[in-house]
Amino acid sequence: MATDAAAAETADPYEELTERLKRINAVQSAGGVLGWDQQVMMPEGGTPARSKQLSVLSSVSHDMLTDDRTEELLDACEDLDLDDEQQAVLREARREYERAAAVPRDLVEQISEASTEALGAWEQAKADDDFEQFAPHLERLVELKREYAEHIDPDRDPYAVLFDDYEPCLPLSQAEEILETLKETLVPMIDEIRESDVDVTTDAFEGHFDADEQEALSRDVLSTLGYDWEHGRLDTSSHPFTSGNQFDSRVTTRFDESDPLGALMATVHEFGHAFYSLGLPKEEFGTPLGESRDLSVHESQSRLWENHVGRSKPFWDLIMPTFLEHFPETDATVEEAYESANQVYEDNPIRIEADELTYHLHIVVRFEIERELISGDLDVEDVPETWNDKYEEYLGIRPDTDAEGCLQDIHWSHGNFGYFPTYSLGSVMAAQLYDAADDDIDDLTGKIRDGEFDDLHAWLRENVHRHGSRYETNELVRQATGEDFTADYFVDYVAEKYGDLYDLESSV
Amino acid sequence: MATDAAAAETADPYEELTERLKRINAVQSAGGVLGWDQQVMMPEGGTPARSKQLSVLSSVSHDMLTDDRTEELLDACEDLDLDDEQQAVLREARREYERAAAVPRDLVEQISEASTEALGAWEQAKADDDFEQFAPHLERLVELKREYAEHIDPDRDPYAVLFDDYEPCLPLSQAEEILETLKETLVPMIDEIRESDVDVTTDAFEGHFDADEQEALSRDVLSTLGYDWEHGRLDTSSHPFTSGNQFDSRVTTRFDESDPLGALMATVHEFGHAFYSLGLPKEEFGTPLGESRDLSVHESQSRLWENHVGRSKPFWDLIMPTFLEHFPETDATVEEAYESANQVYEDNPIRIEADELTYHLHIVVRFEIERELISGDLDVEDVPETWNDKYEEYLGIRPDTDAEGCLQDIHWSHGNFGYFPTYSLGSVMAAQLYDAADDDIDDLTGKIRDGEFDDLHAWLRENVHRHGSRYETNELVRQATGEDFTADYFVDYVAEKYGDLYDLESSV
Repeated sequence: MATDAAAAETADPYEELTERLKRINAVQSAGGVLGWDQQVMMPEGGTPARSKQLSVLSSVSHDMLTDDRTEELLDACEDLDLDDEQQAVLREARREYERAAAVPRDLVEQISEASTEALGAWEQAKADDDFEQFAPHLERLVELKREYAEHIDPDRDPYAVLFDDYEPCLPLSQAEEILETLKETLVPMIDEIRESDVDVTTDAFEGHFDADEQEALSRDVLSTLGYDWEHGRLDTSSHPFTSGNQFDSRVTTRFDESDPLGALMATVHEFGHAFYSLGLPKEEFGTPLGESRDLSVHESQSRLWENHVGRSKPFWDLIMPTFLEHFPETDATVEEAYESANQVYEDNPIRIEADELTYHLHIVVRFEIERELISGDLDVEDVPETWNDKYEEYLGIRPDTDAEGCLQDIHWSHGNFGYFPTYSLGSVMAAQLYDAADDDIDDLTGKIRDGEFDDLHAWLRENVHRHGSRYETNELVRQATGEDFTADYFVDYVAEKYGDLYDLESSV
Repeated sequence: MATDAAAAETADPYEELTERLKRINAVQSAGGVLGWDQQVMMPEGGTPARSKQLSVLSSVSHDMLTDDRTEELLDACEDLDLDDEQQAVLREARREYERAAAVPRDLVEQISEASTEALGAWEQAKADDDFEQFAPHLERLVELKREYAEHIDPDRDPYAVLFDDYEPCLPLSQAEEILETLKETLVPMIDEIRESDVDVTTDAFEGHFDADEQEALSRDVLSTLGYDWEHGRLDTSSHPFTSGNQFDSRVTTRFDESDPLGALMATVHEFGHAFYSLGLPKEEFGTPLGESRDLSVHESQSRLWENHVGRSKPFWDLIMPTFLEHFPETDATVEEAYESANQVYEDNPIRIEADELTYHLHIVVRFEIERELISGDLDVEDVPETWNDKYEEYLGIRPDTDAEGCLQDIHWSHGNFGYFPTYSLGSVMAAQLYDAADDDIDDLTGKIRDGEFDDLHAWLRENVHRHGSRYETNELVRQATGEDFTADYFVDYVAEKYGDLYDLESSV
């Protein structure tokens, strides 16, 4: 302690703080590499060692963050004359410190170990369509996460506390309001689509689509979008994801040989995530200025590319020749491909295969269930039935199996409760950001059609990526678009697009 | 400090020590995964982030090991009534602690960072055949490693201190003696072979051997040898290696389309390493009882499989039909394949492509050069010429390029000075172990011919693998073979095998 105090007097506390943050980040991002490996490369038998490695890295970074020295440095920095960026670093570091300091190291380690075990159990349960195999792991994670929330703030709704982990600078009430708007907008719209007798093409992509050929197509599409292969890779995993940082951001996808759209759209989606990560300032690697803003913003980047680029007509104009090079037997026009890529799947139970409309009802179901799980109003054993009931109520469908129901997604096996709303928030934000980019860029539609992405790249780099976590979420949106974060642009976007596709009366 | 002291009074210090060792090992083995990824998967642009991650993990594990608490626990354990295995854990832990405590954290981190940078520089320098690109990195690593040795023991030969890192329980003098015996045995034997007019087949494998087909062959051979794919993988990298632990031990190889023997023998070699790792006790993961004995012993396992199995006639009886399935146009008998796989490459400058005889002269050259580098008798800039001069003197050849000369191996880019002798020690130990296994197993030759490896697996598991680091190197050999570690069996083995192949007069 004596030597530390001496150091605080002589050294630059801001410099020492940022070096400490970089070291913490290095341990966390090392864990990220191990996580990627676990899902993409690791032989199954490696789990016990990996579980131990991840839990120890997690507790090591927790110890480094919650060390007394961190607080001393944070306090010492308060007295310095810091510029705006440095203030932002301090704000983010203090928030992380205070949150972590509230949670005992043992609990962090227990959550990490339980998650690693749950991941294997979830994979097996999904393969066997047997929720019972996963239930005790989910039970355990719910308990641990409740305990976790209690340590952070025993007086608040534990779900709101957990939501902060993924979206610390957006109030849960704002998220709820946006989800409510989506529900009010989308339920009648989907009803109207269900009743519509407009003949939207749904079968432009029928037949067998070889996985290796799909992978080659994904690689071509990534190159067309501008993925930097010097700083990335494409692999396959059971659930598509992106992992990495500004130097090395890797995407995964998965191939269904009866459906080339799934992998293609997943690839474009993950490109958006990776392109964001690769646009973070390299010189700030490991500090909040070099880290992405929270999950909604990350998702806004993937959704912007997936929905506003990848599901647009000009994109299909651009990509159809490439598609036909890989699958020459496909007999579809660009218009048919576009319609198929945008059909509303009223009968689809799988979130990641959903269209832009039903998608958000998948989220609403998950959101309601996890809130009740965390509050204790719902028992784990009742999740499958409640899940199916809610799907029937909101989406008019009842999943045939739990594998297609409550077991479909990986997130709960990570203990990630509070994560799901960020998906919808991201889509909503994507619409607002894309609208602003479209205003700023001359003939963006034509540029997409020509495969000229430089202006869109530059707009995103300038308005979103380069800031890292400098601005809080609402402020970032305001700086980028000139307006507060709002669902208006999303509502307008879907009303116009789907009004046109399905000839809806309710559309603007 | 007060709370720590209290803990020492109440808790079991041996249990706390082993838990601490497991945590340290988890961080180190996490670094191992990152190292594997760097060589096998990482996109090139990922280097800056990886460099930081590896150096921080290295310094974190160093801090954990050298923490005062480690010494307190080691001291507290001295007073306990420990069994033999626990005594072994204590012996290994104390040795590691004392070594690490002598070296400042900053220096450890500098070496890690310098190595990561040197790796990239070495790869480029080798590709460009431009030693100058690598020279400043080598210079820096030599300086850092000299400094490192000085911290550990300023009064000893720094090279002997560095050798201890790889072979802590075998005196350098014993290594020197064995290398001297090899030199005395092999130089005249190779001379005689050079003069021999016996017509050993050298061209059983001529033509083009597709890399994908070679990979399929490697997979078949690994399966035949008994590689456990639930706990391993095969990939490619610029230098074959094995990485992992008892749960997940992965091998790499590399393919030369004009030479299928290189990849095949490398695969068998790496199998030996992986099979050792996978035989370490799972319940002891992270303690010295669950870690391999040092590098010579590890190399004895790879060499036993590569040389005594993979280069034997019964192995070629076994494997030739598989080889011909993959490469049906190959026109060679088993005898011709065996001879080709054992030809003495008098003109080959590449260590990893060397035969069992010239191999050790490659090691002797490297050993002499790195001793002089560390002692300061040789400047980095003079390495290429000295290298080439020594090759001319010992092996009668002068490499055409530095890529085929002093840049051929990766080890110096890791700062691994003192590592090379363990390769020869491993070969020598392999001969002794194989001889003992052959004595104990009924008709081992016939079993290899029939692909029945169970008895050899069991012998190695029983006599070597299950012990982890319980015994020191010489003791392990004594327990396994009933005799002290000696070069006699290697000398007999090569005299008989090569005497037969080349009809040598000097053979026994």
